[in-house]
Amino acid sequence: MTILDALKKILPSEHISDNDTVLEQHSSDESYHTPKLPDVVVFPQTTEEVSQIMKVACEYKTPVVSYGLGTSLEGSVIPYEKGIVIDYTLMNKVLEVRPDDFLVKVQPGVTRKQLERELKKYGLFFSVDPGADATLGGMAATNASGTTSVKYGIMRDQVRDLEVVLADGTIIHTGSMAAKSSSGYHLNGLFVGSEGTLGCFTELTLKVHGIPEQIMAGRAAFQTLDEAVAAVISILQAGIPIARVELVDDQSMKQINLFSDTTYREVPTVFLEFHGNEAGLKQDVAFTKDLLEDHRCQVLAFESNTAARNRLWEARHNTAYAFLHSYPGKKQMVTDVCVPISELAGAIKDGRKAVEASGLTGGIVGHVGDGNYHILLMVDADDPTDIEKANQVNRQIVEYALKRGGTCTGEHGVGIGKAKYQEAEHGNALEIMRKVKSVLDPNNLLNPGKVLYD
Amino acid sequence: MTILDALKKILPSEHISDNDTVLEQHSSDESYHTPKLPDVVVFPQTTEEVSQIMKVACEYKTPVVSYGLGTSLEGSVIPYEKGIVIDYTLMNKVLEVRPDDFLVKVQPGVTRKQLERELKKYGLFFSVDPGADATLGGMAATNASGTTSVKYGIMRDQVRDLEVVLADGTIIHTGSMAAKSSSGYHLNGLFVGSEGTLGCFTELTLKVHGIPEQIMAGRAAFQTLDEAVAAVISILQAGIPIARVELVDDQSMKQINLFSDTTYREVPTVFLEFHGNEAGLKQDVAFTKDLLEDHRCQVLAFESNTAARNRLWEARHNTAYAFLHSYPGKKQMVTDVCVPISELAGAIKDGRKAVEASGLTGGIVGHVGDGNYHILLMVDADDPTDIEKANQVNRQIVEYALKRGGTCTGEHGVGIGKAKYQEAEHGNALEIMRKVKSVLDPNNLLNPGKVLYD
Repeated sequence: MTILDALKKILPSEHISDNDTVLEQHSSDESYHTPKLPDVVVFPQTTEEVSQIMKVACEYKTPVVSYGLGTSLEGSVIPYEKGIVIDYTLMNKVLEVRPDDFLVKVQPGVTRKQLERELKKYGLFFSVDPGADATLGGMAATNASGTTSVKYGIMRDQVRDLEVVLADGTIIHTGSMAAKSSSGYHLNGLFVGSEGTLGCFTELTLKVHGIPEQIMAGRAAFQTLDEAVAAVISILQAGIPIARVELVDDQSMKQINLFSDTTYREVPTVFLEFHGNEAGLKQDVAFTKDLLEDHRCQVLAFESNTAARNRLWEARHNTAYAFLHSYPGKKQMVTDVCVPISELAGAIKDGRKAVEASGLTGGIVGHVGDGNYHILLMVDADDPTDIEKANQVNRQIVEYALKRGGTCTGEHGVGIGKAKYQEAEHGNALEIMRKVKSVLDPNNLLNPGKVLYD
Repeated sequence: MTILDALKKILPSEHISDNDTVLEQHSSDESYHTPKLPDVVVFPQTTEEVSQIMKVACEYKTPVVSYGLGTSLEGSVIPYEKGIVIDYTLMNKVLEVRPDDFLVKVQPGVTRKQLERELKKYGLFFSVDPGADATLGGMAATNASGTTSVKYGIMRDQVRDLEVVLADGTIIHTGSMAAKSSSGYHLNGLFVGSEGTLGCFTELTLKVHGIPEQIMAGRAAFQTLDEAVAAVISILQAGIPIARVELVDDQSMKQINLFSDTTYREVPTVFLEFHGNEAGLKQDVAFTKDLLEDHRCQVLAFESNTAARNRLWEARHNTAYAFLHSYPGKKQMVTDVCVPISELAGAIKDGRKAVEASGLTGGIVGHVGDGNYHILLMVDADDPTDIEKANQVNRQIVEYALKRGGTCTGEHGVGIGKAKYQEAEHGNALEIMRKVKSVLDPNNLLNPGKVLYD
């Protein structure tokens, strides 16, 4: 019996595909990483089916990659060892909203925007906002974050419970619905960010928040990047509970204007957002304005109406796509270090120098409230020189961050792109991670070659 | 060579003790659990010494228990398998304050109040407040939380990095100084809450916060416990970003007055605190007052001056000691379930019934903003009937919580007291925890018998 025959015993044949187009669709992500075709793609509808798939994979010693929507930037979902790709498109239901408990239960294929629409009916929102309309399963797998984590935390902070299918098909739960717990080991934290290397997520219980009484967003334009960074640091130091604080450099502002048909000044800009009650917000915004002006902020524009605010954030979120649009045929290598905030100004300066030295085009955007910034490097994925230049820039940026207590990836995950930095970052703790992997997935079937470099 | 001789080769003899008084001091915690003497207590001064101690323990296959200040409530630090107790009293330095990064590095023996004094110089504070003046190492080991976690999160949320000595003496770091990371597996989360069963913490890097511009605390007295709980739930539903919200029942208020020389009304009471800017706070407090009055709040007293606020929280924190003071010779069994907030009113009602049926004395206090509440059961630890009654109450409360998606321990940890509920709570995920333990501590030397019931 072939593996296809074995899969046909557990899934309807229309939920199994080795059609070229389908294989092709599951061979890559949004990054510069080289695609690779899997052997077969399956579309389970239930946890039980995922469990059966894992049992088949075990029997045939076949690698399994979990696939959300392919918005990964580090090759996390590319099936380099071939085998089975599990696509969760058919497991896309919001199972339960518990407004009184500020909780929601979803299947892994639910996307961020789909959840947002559902929660709005209850006056609730889900806080993690990575930009892309990723699946919640994928966001948990890479421990995604984004613009709002400075106030609400990262994906790991929102996960109360995961239903996980382990390598041998066993189904476990990693947590509960309690807001906190000191019971057992923290499996929630271990599985979030494991990028499909420890198990397949089949259900997620997530924390949600009430939509704030008042939201105010703004843009602050500066003469220099240094002044913009210094202004952000002063806002954080002042203890203003800012909900979003994003840095966009002049090159990125130019791309934003081209792509989003906006007329923002093409200078280093900080995008801000405040959530709270009306009186508190007024005081926070007034204080922030003072701080921004202290750093010679040139233009300051605040918008409290929803449409203007959405336009602002959409423009910000589309920065990466804007670059891709301007450089047809090119791909993106996006750096992703996160450093202690006191090291941020130096890190960005060093990163900018590295890009200039490389001769590549690269815009800077960043979730600077967390000390996390990206350089969007435009590369010709078929040109080894381009790739090597980008790798060199990335390496320099990562080394700078690691030397100063930072991390090689703030939010994109390790995948294949950051595997080579794991030893430098984690030292002998990497051995502990390998031991954990070895007992949970003794045959190395779950997304092999990712996170832990062999 | 005896193990004592081996230890003398690595530690000065005055840092090793098998003196009866010292053994006795390290034989128990603050709970009803039966004490047990260790063989020897050691007082290392450095990480390297802890590493050497673990190597000796490995060689002699001797159990090792890490001991902070013995404020555990579940027997986490009682050396039931005898062996070595590591006391971190001499590792009690605040190593580095990084105000710009909102970070502090401490040794494990630093206590909460010691850290508070140090941070105040920088206008900073550490948010986790379990009541007892525990060590930071102990608080990380049990994943402590307390009154402020409704706003600032639990111990696990504050830990950026741990230096850990593993079972074989290897020294690892579990994280970095970055505010967020998607690199590797989340060892921080795994080690926090592991109660000394996976390694010994020798250094902690913790997140700290700026002291809020304005703090306002208050007391709200109700006619019934049900109304008090309903009022709390309405505050949370309204999205008011409350910093503390504590429930104290009539019996506990009586003990508070006796012990703290206060004259509070002896009725179900909610203690509240707000942190924020002046204008925002004013609006939050006004809104809260309306909500409290909707629930027939009888007395409402707010205090913004520091001394009055401190008196209020000291009284609240001393509730457990107040009961012990009123019942000399008795010990306490403190229940610790945490449930989804929608289940809280029912859980407390059920818990109160269980106490009444048992005939035991027991006051209710709770970090109700998180759905976490305690019943302080007074027991004669030498009377098996008393212990059995208390166990029966505890069992009923835990079963009620687990049936409704809660946890058997919100913040006290598993130790020996909650080990029997691990299987009911975690199901087959317990097997995964056991596997993790088995690869990290193959000889089961680190705090054996705790967390994972054999």
